[in-house]
Formats: sequence, C-alpha cells, structure tokens
Amino acid sequence: MLDVAARLPTPPELSIGPGDDAAVLASAAGESIVVSVDLSIEGVHFRREWLTWEAIGYRATAAALSDLAAMAARPLGALVSVALPIELETGVYLQLAAGLTEALADAEAALLGGDTSRSPGAAVIDVTVIGAVVEPVTRGGATPGDQVWVTGRLGGAAAAVLAYNSALEPAPPARRRFEHPTPRWREARWLAERGLLTAMIDLSDGLAGDAAHIARASGAGLRLRLDRLPLDEALEGWSDTTVARRIAAGGGEDYELLFTSPAGRVDRVRDAFQRTFDLELTRIGDAVEDTDLPASGVTWIDRAGEPVDPPATAGFDHFAG
Amino acid sequence: MLDVAARLPTPPELSIGPGDDAAVLASAAGESIVVSVDLSIEGVHFRREWLTWEAIGYRATAAALSDLAAMAARPLGALVSVALPIELETGVYLQLAAGLTEALADAEAALLGGDTSRSPGAAVIDVTVIGAVVEPVTRGGATPGDQVWVTGRLGGAAAAVLAYNSALEPAPPARRRFEHPTPRWREARWLAERGLLTAMIDLSDGLAGDAAHIARASGAGLRLRLDRLPLDEALEGWSDTTVARRIAAGGGEDYELLFTSPAGRVDRVRDAFQRTFDLELTRIGDAVEDTDLPASGVTWIDRAGEPVDPPATAGFDHFAG
Repeated sequence: MLDVAARLPTPPELSIGPGDDAAVLASAAGESIVVSVDLSIEGVHFRREWLTWEAIGYRATAAALSDLAAMAARPLGALVSVALPIELETGVYLQLAAGLTEALADAEAALLGGDTSRSPGAAVIDVTVIGAVVEPVTRGGATPGDQVWVTGRLGGAAAAVLAYNSALEPAPPARRRFEHPTPRWREARWLAERGLLTAMIDLSDGLAGDAAHIARASGAGLRLRLDRLPLDEALEGWSDTTVARRIAAGGGEDYELLFTSPAGRVDRVRDAFQRTFDLELTRIGDAVEDTDLPASGVTWIDRAGEPVDPPATAGFDHFAG
Repeated sequence: MLDVAARLPTPPELSIGPGDDAAVLASAAGESIVVSVDLSIEGVHFRREWLTWEAIGYRATAAALSDLAAMAARPLGALVSVALPIELETGVYLQLAAGLTEALADAEAALLGGDTSRSPGAAVIDVTVIGAVVEPVTRGGATPGDQVWVTGRLGGAAAAVLAYNSALEPAPPARRRFEHPTPRWREARWLAERGLLTAMIDLSDGLAGDAAHIARASGAGLRLRLDRLPLDEALEGWSDTTVARRIAAGGGEDYELLFTSPAGRVDRVRDAFQRTFDLELTRIGDAVEDTDLPASGVTWIDRAGEPVDPPATAGFDHFAG
C-alpha cells in the first residue's frame, strides 16, 4: 500500500509520513481534526462482477471522503486497510491501489497509513479519513424557515444498481456516477466560507433517509417537494417521472450534499456556485416546525402542496433486486 | 458500536462525538496528531477457538494503541470497523464490543467512530487510532554509543501460541499475556518527558525483526545480548534457557517497547521507572557503527561477546506450528 503513497500530494501538515509506527500531522492553529471511517465488504457493499477493482478502490475511498465534505472539512489524508482473497492475482491489489490512490489524489489527500492482509473470505476495504476544519457543520443546525438544498443530480447510482440487479449493463452516465462518485468537499467549503450552512449531510443512504437524519438531529421537520428533485441524466429519459423521482429520493450513494440555509441566502450566490463548480444547486423544500410530522421528521409534498407517500427509506440495499 | 461509546471517557479535545458524519477533535496548541491502523482478520491474525470474542476485541484494540505508544503519543481515541459472519449470534457482537471498549477505557481513549457490517466470510476488526504528541519519537534516531533497552518481559505471547499450535491449553501467565497485551503509552511518555529516547518501536513482529526496523531507520547497527533478554514468567521454567530466549527474541505480539537512549541516562531513572509502573527495564545491548553487520543491521552476541546465530526474524506467524 505504502509504495503508492509517493505519488500522492504531501500536505504541509504531514511531518512524519507512513512507514514509522504511525504518521504524524502537525495540526494547524485554530483548526479541528475531523475523523470518519467507512467499511466496504465484497458481497455486502460491492460485487466484483459489477466493477473493476480500480473502481472498487475509488468508490470506497470517495465514500469515506464524502463524510468529510458533510462536515465542511478539507481532507488531509486517509488510512486504508485492505484484505484480499489469496486466490486473486497480485494485479488485483495494484488495480485496487490505483483506484484508491486516484480518489485520494483527486481530493488532494495523502495516504497516512495502511494495513494489508490476505483474506480467507471476501475482499475487505476499510478507509479512515482525516480532515481539518475551522468550524464544522453538523446535521443538527436546521431551524424552521430554513431552505433545503441539494447539490448536483440524484439517482444515478440507483439507476446503475437497478440495471445490475436486472443483469443489464447500466447506461454510461449511470455507470460513471456509480463508479466515480465525487466527494463534494470543495463545494461544502465554498458554501461554509460564505456562512450559508445551518445543517448538512452527504447523501449516502439516500435523500429520504438522510433528510430524516437532519430532521432528527435538528429537532425540526423537513418538508420536501418530490417534483423538485433534480434527476440524474440516467433517469431523465424515463417517461414516468414520478417513479424516477421516487428512485432518486430512495436510492443511495449519490454522495451529493443535502443542506439547510437561512431563507434567501443561497439564491444570491447560486449562479456563482454553479459557474464555479459546473454543478447544479436545487432548492427542494423547507425546514418547518416539528409538529404533526411523521416519526422521520420528513414530509413529502407535490407541486400543489398536497402530501405524497414517502419514498422508501430503508437505506440502500444493493442486492434487493 | 456507538452504543458503547457512552461508557468511555470523553477527552476534552472531543468537540463533536460520533453520530454525525464524522467526529471532531479540537487539536491542542503545539501538539501534533498521530494516526495508525491495525487490521485483524479471523484465520490470519486470530482464531476464535483460541480466544473469547472479548479477548479478540481487546487484543485488536490494544495492538493498534501500541503503535501510538511507539511514537510516545497519548491516545485520544479510535475508530473501529467490525464485520461479523451472519451465522454468529448477536451476543458475539456485544462481547467483541465489550473487549474493545475495555481496551479503550484502559487507555483513556474515546470511541471516535466506527462502521459495522455483516461478513460473508471471516470476522474482521480494523482499528484506527488517533493520538496526540508534542514531540514524536521515531524509529530513526539511534546513534552509535546509545544503549538499547526493553520494557517488561518477552515471549509470553509466543509461549501461548506454541501451546495453541500443539493443541495444548497455555499456562495461565502466557494466556494472560496473549489475551490482554498492555500498550505501554504511559511508560513511553514518562521516558519521553525525561528526554531519554532517541529511537523507539513497539514489539509487534518480535524483537529480532523490530530491532532491524530501528537499525535500518537509524542507519546504525544494534548489537544485542541474547542472554540478557528478560524472559516472561511463562518461559522462565524452561530448562533450556537458550531455546527460551530464542523464542522470546523471535516471537511477536508482546507489545513491549524497544528503545535506544544515550549511555548512562536510563540508569539514573531506572528504579523510579520500575517503581512507578511495576515493570522491568532491561538493557539488552548497544547501538554500534553500521559496519561489518548483516543486512538486518542487528548482531546477536552471548555473554562472552561471541556472535550467536540470529533468532528467526520472519515476523510472527500464528499458524506455523
């Protein structure tokens, strides 16, 4: 693992790189350290039939980095543990390392350490990410009157999984979204630096479930417009847009950001954001008082304001098909 | 996993605990952050026939914390990923969590995050540890003339593995050492605060191999006296003390500290150290010029100063028996 680290950026904070018993990061004055971990197991989180090993490494790393984005932190680096079945050729390890190295390089993050082992069973990738932030954004700061926004478009990964589960090859845009999710940490910091964020989460379980996390942590309700959901290119052609929107709301692993912001604030910078990142910002609802709401804290309405059935919130089961 | 976190100490640095997308640690002024990861896989690193699940959790966590000790860092906390085969009962998960919680509590460390999954194959535990240090001690600072010291006694874990591999029940002292290794971070900090350490490593692979890591990183040789090795209680009764010492030198997972210190310095504080920690400090050799030495950088001598064959340095293979 460590042989690939040399190709990665070395953050100025890294005073001792991997290779000793531990890596050492000099912490910057006024910044806090942000840590999270994401475990990927073959047969549970991914299937080797669906993805190249490079894509498996990229996705596992990007998913972990996305949790730093959700706190508006910038990535410093990652520690990656990999266990591979002994029957796989050495090339597999190199492909996996190439994928995770690419994801780290894209995020300007260093490899801070790792551990490798053979696995008597499935392939295992566990990625711990370390970031830095001056003022973290949590899930818990939404207040009634805030607007609810989402970055990018939703449902691309879900469309890919639907295809795989039907033994079909996903359409190229869905496949791209599934293989190479982009942790939105630059976007998160841009928004945070402008003081726009009251609460934030990354969309890993799916919008319906992740919105409930914000609602519960904030003690506020979220009222979301199903017809406002920005559909991924992969779902755009669907004749039944309601079904497409329910898939986009229930499906996971888009790794876009869901956030709340005081009314009127995002509108002023929306064009600048979209130009800077070539990424849409869409207002999909409002934070409301937490009364007469379902236990999830999230209600779904249509264009006329009438309630609609909530999309599935059971998280994201790859193998439900 | 996170339900056990409430029972653990909350370091003053922890500004946002686990439960959001990531945990946040306010870093103390002047301190650096130290990170390391240790992967444990059933059938490779442990066998469920040998240990209770509680001991498996304790060992996996203690092994990771020991890497912080090796840098003279104090533990802040850990992120723990666990994947268990679906056929195990829920009780197993609780036992494992109890063991790792105990190891964290013993080290005054918080649970900073975690991820859990079912495993289609073997049980997997991956522990990332985060610590803090003002001045880290590396493997690379030994200079000729330094003395080589070791904490505690060696070979207890190796004696347990020898017994297990012969289908025997280990003697109670060996079993205790194997089940509950103690990360020596308090001892390391005590020594570091007194400016005694030039290089340090924790004994995970075994003294013979780990000494070579110090020698190579320091560009110095280490000349070690086989007859000086402090034998664990479990090896003390052996009539062939040379064999016992070779086992102690080659066997791994004692998690004691191997360090170098300028001549004469440790002698002045040795009694105080031993009283404070109820733990022996033994001088086992010297750092020498890196000339006429084997590639490992380590030579072994007997009481008369005559060379003896080096103990096995192939690392620690549990299943060699």
